[in-house]
Amino acid sequence: MPDPDFSGSLDSTERVEEGRVLEPKFGADGLITCVATDASTGDLLMVAHMNAEALRRTIVTGDAWYYSRSRKSLWRKGESSGNGQRVVEMRIDCDQDAVWIKVEQAGAGACHTGRRSCFYRKVEGEGGKIGLAFVDADKQFDPTNVYRK
Amino acid sequence: MPDPDFSGSLDSTERVEEGRVLEPKFGADGLITCVATDASTGDLLMVAHMNAEALRRTIVTGDAWYYSRSRKSLWRKGESSGNGQRVVEMRIDCDQDAVWIKVEQAGAGACHTGRRSCFYRKVEGEGGKIGLAFVDADKQFDPTNVYRK
Repeated sequence: MPDPDFSGSLDSTERVEEGRVLEPKFGADGLITCVATDASTGDLLMVAHMNAEALRRTIVTGDAWYYSRSRKSLWRKGESSGNGQRVVEMRIDCDQDAVWIKVEQAGAGACHTGRRSCFYRKVEGEGGKIGLAFVDADKQFDPTNVYRK
Repeated sequence: MPDPDFSGSLDSTERVEEGRVLEPKFGADGLITCVATDASTGDLLMVAHMNAEALRRTIVTGDAWYYSRSRKSLWRKGESSGNGQRVVEMRIDCDQDAVWIKVEQAGAGACHTGRRSCFYRKVEGEGGKIGLAFVDADKQFDPTNVYRK
């Protein structure tokens, strides 16, 4: 992949929505939302953020790079856990402020808790109270063995 | 659904990640990211944002409510277009800062441009240049007939 240039002017709604130029709209914090789904099953794996450099590296290398808001740093998915993501396809939405990557998820899962997907709980109303129910409680790996403190 | 209370303290990572209490983590802007997929096909339809009131209304009514950052207002999906979303299931991610709703999409599509999904273009490298290719160019409805200016 060639090196992308994100210096678009975003001056026209028509151009952003109907154009063929990638002009990602980063937020005031310099980040764009990225949704990652499993390329084979279609399952939603995670929602994370990219800054311009993470997006650039993802496009150029084909590996998923993100920006960690808590750690305030660029991060290649899997660099600690080994559970990296190879990008099969990248899409951008109508107003170019969200990215969707379909990935081949390496290892046991995308979630740092050890699950395949970060979305392992559903919101439920039961007995007059809102709560969470585990849809997938099983940890595919033990995060304490994977992430060093 | 009963009326949810989002006054959780979020004081413990273990509680947020492994608990059964819904304690959504809204950003500094008061918003949480929401991903909507088609409940029948699994396709990614859109990525949008909810404030606490939009999330509350979505849980209580079963209709998808969002917060528009551009219009700075609460918004029930479909209130202008008729293309509303009924929530079949809601999930929350590990750190409770992203919501996933599986929806029954009413009408022709989720995207204000007239397409079924907002992600109708993929990012491509061709001839040494990064660009966008239309994966789904077909408009299911004419937005000029649906949205009044």
